[in-house]
Amino acid sequence: MTSRNAIALESGVLDLLRHFAADSNAADSYAAACMERLDDVEPVLKAFETRPVIGKAKSHGPMAGIPVAVKDIFATSDMPTTNGSAVYKGHVPPADAWVVERLRNLAATIFGKTVSTEFAWRHPGATVNPWNRNHTPGGSSSGSAAAVGAGIVPLALGSQTLGSIIRPAAFNGVVGFKPSFGAIPRTGVHHLSQSLDHVGFFARRVDDVAYALSLLAGTSDTDLHGRPVPPFEVDVNSGVPLGTPPRLAAVRFSLWSRVEPEQQAAFEAAIAKLKAAGAIVEDVDMPDLDPKAWEVTHTILASEGSALFSDLVARYPDKTSDHLKDLVSAGKAHNAHDYLLAKKSQATLRDNATSQLAGFDAVLTLSAFGEAPRGLVYTGDAAYCTPWTLLGTPALSLPAGFGKNGLPLAVQVVGAYREDYKTLCVAKWVETHLQFNPGLPATI
Amino acid sequence: MTSRNAIALESGVLDLLRHFAADSNAADSYAAACMERLDDVEPVLKAFETRPVIGKAKSHGPMAGIPVAVKDIFATSDMPTTNGSAVYKGHVPPADAWVVERLRNLAATIFGKTVSTEFAWRHPGATVNPWNRNHTPGGSSSGSAAAVGAGIVPLALGSQTLGSIIRPAAFNGVVGFKPSFGAIPRTGVHHLSQSLDHVGFFARRVDDVAYALSLLAGTSDTDLHGRPVPPFEVDVNSGVPLGTPPRLAAVRFSLWSRVEPEQQAAFEAAIAKLKAAGAIVEDVDMPDLDPKAWEVTHTILASEGSALFSDLVARYPDKTSDHLKDLVSAGKAHNAHDYLLAKKSQATLRDNATSQLAGFDAVLTLSAFGEAPRGLVYTGDAAYCTPWTLLGTPALSLPAGFGKNGLPLAVQVVGAYREDYKTLCVAKWVETHLQFNPGLPATI
Repeated sequence: MTSRNAIALESGVLDLLRHFAADSNAADSYAAACMERLDDVEPVLKAFETRPVIGKAKSHGPMAGIPVAVKDIFATSDMPTTNGSAVYKGHVPPADAWVVERLRNLAATIFGKTVSTEFAWRHPGATVNPWNRNHTPGGSSSGSAAAVGAGIVPLALGSQTLGSIIRPAAFNGVVGFKPSFGAIPRTGVHHLSQSLDHVGFFARRVDDVAYALSLLAGTSDTDLHGRPVPPFEVDVNSGVPLGTPPRLAAVRFSLWSRVEPEQQAAFEAAIAKLKAAGAIVEDVDMPDLDPKAWEVTHTILASEGSALFSDLVARYPDKTSDHLKDLVSAGKAHNAHDYLLAKKSQATLRDNATSQLAGFDAVLTLSAFGEAPRGLVYTGDAAYCTPWTLLGTPALSLPAGFGKNGLPLAVQVVGAYREDYKTLCVAKWVETHLQFNPGLPATI
Repeated sequence: MTSRNAIALESGVLDLLRHFAADSNAADSYAAACMERLDDVEPVLKAFETRPVIGKAKSHGPMAGIPVAVKDIFATSDMPTTNGSAVYKGHVPPADAWVVERLRNLAATIFGKTVSTEFAWRHPGATVNPWNRNHTPGGSSSGSAAAVGAGIVPLALGSQTLGSIIRPAAFNGVVGFKPSFGAIPRTGVHHLSQSLDHVGFFARRVDDVAYALSLLAGTSDTDLHGRPVPPFEVDVNSGVPLGTPPRLAAVRFSLWSRVEPEQQAAFEAAIAKLKAAGAIVEDVDMPDLDPKAWEVTHTILASEGSALFSDLVARYPDKTSDHLKDLVSAGKAHNAHDYLLAKKSQATLRDNATSQLAGFDAVLTLSAFGEAPRGLVYTGDAAYCTPWTLLGTPALSLPAGFGKNGLPLAVQVVGAYREDYKTLCVAKWVETHLQFNPGLPATI
């Protein structure tokens, strides 16, 4: 880490916008610092599939000068989009993804393309965890999470079909957010499962996430699953309102016994802090979801993934992974009837969860089972993320401590479907009272 | 048929609105005439599942005083909704279907519930064809088509999953319209296949159809397949613009050899008339659709129908038909992979058809193979309707002659997806130049 840019590299999006507004040279010098940081750490980190080539920062627009790294399953018309697959090596799509085009219109700087697992499924890329190069950064949005975690960019686009934002956010010590299903169009984003794919992002602060969502939410004629969330504005100076102490449902699921003791302790410590600050926290079981949500999700994902990838796997047996082949095989074993009942369950489970949680402002749960696993082969278990992805509810991961290996731990705040703004206000309250900032890793 | 109301009973919606505007008693006396016509013909016709109970007509609103008969798969909070099934006998839903509520807000008179086949699938109800009681009225919107055909109401709601509006419209000598997929929310309408179900209606004139669509198109939070069509207004005095002679693609499909000779002749005669009036009509083959569209549609319908009805069939074996049981069995034989590929084909075939037909204003094709078949067991073949239902394109059936048994024949005008307004303007041009009005049947 180079010392002269240390403060700037830890800044969030709103901090940066205030700097840029006060000093017309700040955006370009910050971008240069980001490039320098990239040069320093990328040889080890391997977060980028395509390095950024940046010109002078735009000076006007809601995101003017903000470098945004983009997961390599999002189409970019001026850079290759590999989808994390050898099949798409060097492929440059004819048009930007909807959300990339939106970012350009907001005057953001598209800061390269980040490593994704193969088609956002399980086969990992080369990226390492910035906190310990021997550990996975998580996946599938591996490079985007690591790029924010390493202090290269303040904002990065990711996607989540099971836990591909929340889990790498937890593993990299950053804030990760998956908005309500349908809030941001997936047009130009390679699908893994149309009923489960969400566009979201990584940042350093809840306010930055809220600002990004307020600008990136929208609808596209070519994403038929779009469901606009109520529009809102975020004040660049104050972010979203801090609000009053929330009433939180602490959800541990039946998976709790498999959670690392340090992660269990971090969760309980977080609850104690939040209670001390005035929150009401009640333990809640969700017997409708647990364990049904996982089975329903995997039926949908395998069925849809199989339909998406079967031709590709047949055409390119040498350029597709066993993980992808297994997904296609698993999907082909499902009956259409069972798939459609799973889709029906998805809607029913969402309605049931909404009813069950009506008395709470949000759910507090885990983002992952603990620290990022050692090794780069396995990107970690998404089980704590999966139910909320299935339900399409807004979900945010917040750093909440370190594990026994010095890698980050996290908690997850989940709100009601399409109540993204309220969820972000609750998350800001939790962030404020957890009083934990992991900072940047000292060495990578 | 009672003579004193003969003219009024043949009137269209716009005609009636002009009468009602000029005479404050006209709506109530017209409603009384409709009730009298119902009393006269219903003992034979059997178009109604629940007879209307009407009070004084509302005097203000875009549809004030217009009696609208409603297919019995549309929920009504003040009348039973049987869905054409013994399982739902006497069932009164807690709320109106979205489109029924909309009609009430427009000041229309909900004029009873009309016979549907069981869940809009194949098992027929008791309705007969008003032109010949020994022939089917078609299905599944049997009662709605027959009620307009018999002159009981000027407008009736129907639904189409394969050919359930276009075909009965043809068989009953009325105008039937299926708008673009997603134009009218299906909230509160019993589904048969979520990817194929359309709400539409029966009327006497293209202008009436256009007026109804302009008022009934909308979106509902609880129909996720909603795709708003561009809004438009219809002048109550002039209807939609007549426009200039269109360029039409005459589509006969490979089914043509099975078409009754009188229907073939009516189609060719229609083309000759339209050409004489200035239309350009070119023969077009659609090799992408023909025969793939039928297989794709049936894969989607059986898969989705099976997921919808399997529990019901298992719970009520004595109250569900063999047709419904066969649908469930057929659906269970489909693989999720094949279902999803069929869904993908649905989108691809629509795009291909849009490209292929880009140089035309509309398609001219058949609505059915000929006259309504004899007997009430078989509601007829939907093959000429199915491809356009799959594509979700706006489709309108126009009366075009009589067959050898004195039953109506028709042609179908099909437009581009979401170009409903343009399609209706073309249909008005075709209607105007066909110069054919079957009138009402002399006896029922």
